[in-house]
Order: sequence, then C-alpha cells, then structure tokens
Amino acid sequence: MSTLAVVSGGMDSVTMLHVLHDQGEKKLGVVSFDYGQRHGRKELNCALQNCNDLNLEWTLIDMAFMKSLLIGSSLTDSRVDVPEGHYAAESMKATVVPNRNMIMLSIAAGVALANGYERIATAVHAGDHAIYPDCRPEFIEEMGNLLDTATDGFWEPFFGDGAHLYAPFVNKTKADIVRIGDGVGVDWTKTWSCYVGEESHCGKCGTCVERKEAFRLAGVVDPTPYKDEAFEVAAYRG
Amino acid sequence: MSTLAVVSGGMDSVTMLHVLHDQGEKKLGVVSFDYGQRHGRKELNCALQNCNDLNLEWTLIDMAFMKSLLIGSSLTDSRVDVPEGHYAAESMKATVVPNRNMIMLSIAAGVALANGYERIATAVHAGDHAIYPDCRPEFIEEMGNLLDTATDGFWEPFFGDGAHLYAPFVNKTKADIVRIGDGVGVDWTKTWSCYVGEESHCGKCGTCVERKEAFRLAGVVDPTPYKDEAFEVAAYRG
Repeated sequence: MSTLAVVSGGMDSVTMLHVLHDQGEKKLGVVSFDYGQRHGRKELNCALQNCNDLNLEWTLIDMAFMKSLLIGSSLTDSRVDVPEGHYAAESMKATVVPNRNMIMLSIAAGVALANGYERIATAVHAGDHAIYPDCRPEFIEEMGNLLDTATDGFWEPFFGDGAHLYAPFVNKTKADIVRIGDGVGVDWTKTWSCYVGEESHCGKCGTCVERKEAFRLAGVVDPTPYKDEAFEVAAYRG
Repeated sequence: MSTLAVVSGGMDSVTMLHVLHDQGEKKLGVVSFDYGQRHGRKELNCALQNCNDLNLEWTLIDMAFMKSLLIGSSLTDSRVDVPEGHYAAESMKATVVPNRNMIMLSIAAGVALANGYERIATAVHAGDHAIYPDCRPEFIEEMGNLLDTATDGFWEPFFGDGAHLYAPFVNKTKADIVRIGDGVGVDWTKTWSCYVGEESHCGKCGTCVERKEAFRLAGVVDPTPYKDEAFEVAAYRG
C-alpha cells in the first residue's frame, strides 16, 4: 500500500511511522498539522526529525483557524492554565478542540488524494477513547467508510477502493505502543508529549504523567529528561 | 433548531440561508471558507452582505492550506485556465479540490460545537452529484451519522443528539433552487457564481453557464449583468 501517515511528533504517531516504514510500504509520506499548539514547534520538530531520519516527504498544514474553534481549551489558548494530573482525568476535557481528529483526517485525505496515496494512517489509541469520541473504533470504521463514499468514482484512480483509513493502534494502550516502539527502535528523545512547551518535558502535565506511566507499565527505560522527575499522580502510583 | 449554515455566497447557499431564516430557527449563524478562490472576495462579500441584511453572526475560516491540496485545479491556481462550458462537463473536474466538502463540513461542525449550534446546514444539490462524490445523498447521510458518532457523549451537551447535518437541497436541481429563492425574496445581485472573478460575471465559464441555465429553466428573470450575455453552450440551448 501507499500510505500517508498523520504524525504529530508524539510517541504514538512516531511509533506508527516506524512500524509502517518497517512494513515496507510501497510509498510512505507524512502530514502534520500546526494548529498553534502552545508547545509550539517542539512536537512538530520531532515529526520533522523522524521524517528526515527515514527520508520521507513531509507536508505541514497550517491550521491557524483552529484557534477559533476552542471551548475554553488550554491546548492552544495561553490564557487558560494547563491542568496537572492524569491525561484521562475529567479536567483534561479542557484541552479538546472540537472535532479535531475528524477535521485533521478529512484534510489528510485531501492531501493523500492530491499526492497519490491510497490510504491515510492515524495513531489513535485506546487511551483516547474516553474523552475523544472521534478516536473510538466505531468512529474509525465509519470514517473509513465515509472516505470510500466521499471519493467514490471520481477519486478512485487516485485513492483506490476499499479501506482508506488505517488505525493500527486503535485498540492498543499507550504502554502497548511503547513496547511496539521499543521493538522497532524508536528514538524516544525524538518524540514530544508535554503540553506546557518549555525546553524540556515538565513532568507534571497530563501528557507527561501519561508518558511516564506508559514507560513504567511497558517496562521500558524512559530516556526523557523531565523538569520534575518525581511527580506522579497519586492514583497511578504503582 | 439552532443551525450554523455553510454559506459560500453562491446562489444555492444564499437561498438556503434565507429559507432557514424564514423558518424561524431558534438561532441561526453563518460560516464561510476562504480557500484562496481566484474569484477572490467577490463570493465571500456576497455571503457577508446577506449576513448583514439578516443580522446574522458570520465566521470566516481561513483555509489557505487548501492551495496545497490541488490536482491541477483551476479553482484556486491562477496558472490553470478556467474551462469554458457547462459546469457538469468532464472538463470541470479540473476545478475540484480533493475532499473539499468533507473538509469544510468537518470544520463547520467544529465551529458549531464551539458556538453552541445543534446542527450544520449545507446547500449541496443534485447538480453537484455527478462530479462531487462528497455532495451525494449517501455521503450526506453517512456524514450526518459520523458527526453523531464523532460527538457522542462528550459533545452532546453542546451538539444535541440526532441529525447534525441538514441538506435541504440535496435532491433539488439548480432551477428548483432559483424558484425557491425567488419565493423567499433572495436578491440575486447579492450572490456570486463566476469562477473567473472579474468585476462582473463573465457569462462564459462553467458556473456562469449553469447560472444562466438555472434562471431560464426556472422561468425567473435573471438580473445578473454578464460580460458576455449571449454565450450559451450549444448542447444546452433551448
């Protein structure tokens, strides 16, 4: 298959990219989205570094308009404090850009069509399900079918027929992904999680806590230099 | 219902907006997309004029990235000649931005969620079906279902439950729409069709030919000042 991978520069999508590369795709490319994340270019630079390492074409889509789609979100609005604690906690709902995944996948499909890829790949995983309805397995299946309908006839010469949306981690946990990434030689220092966006990972925000936990559960050494190494949410202490 | 209408400033979406306004929606707003159309601000200014006339809130989304999604499209790339002739002709495929409607509807859903609208409305019509798979009835139905899945649980307080995508013209012809617009008092001089984008409608490009034909078939006087009044595609002469 020829596959266009949606890669943020986080652990999940970078792992997926290396898995796809190992599978020997006929053609492999990357699309990333700049939606004014407050962690700025940190995450996107990781996406670019991995593309360079694997010698892949990188398309960056400017989603400046996403700023206008926020409901008190702390993900792109610097006036709102980033919640500390576990990513899946209720407070993390504040970091949601409405319909973000569906928007990015729709645009990725456009990029794929314009550049002759047969499918798009997304690294949504089981940990996303609770708070992001557009990351759940039923969404992935329906979205795949919709892309088939949306491209029927006209786009077939470009997009092929059948499964246009590949989500290999949709039922994997973050710890599963760390184990998989470890197996395909992901350089974790070229992945970024922290929502705060300072020089190093803060170690205290939701995604940092989730990152630490994933390494611990996977039994893989975490090479990330955190500003606060010791911080863990009480409920998740081993 | 509270409805966010996707309005380009063309005849179809402006007519839909006036129909929705006449229906007395609980809340009505408009979202438009600037994707670097070569007809520049002409069409978007028509959208804004109608919002001002009806005293509605207008959201403009900058889709500059759409330029990178073109397959030799003449719609936004000034290096490609605009085809003359009937809009539905084979040559008009050159004006397609891949997956454009799906991208715009996904973003519109995000805008609706962020602003407390229960549904989005699109003016796709039967004339779009042949060349735009993402304007067909089966796409509209699947997309409506997908928006329900994509917003399940998390977004229900904002987005309600049920039909999130309203497409009142999906089985109407362009001539039907002209008759409907005539009935609700649309000022056609505040709608824009021409792809060439000069001071007045050229009268020769695909959308101008389609516009002329719609008025003729509807039996409604066409108030549009065309640069080339007489031009008609032979196959469509009465």
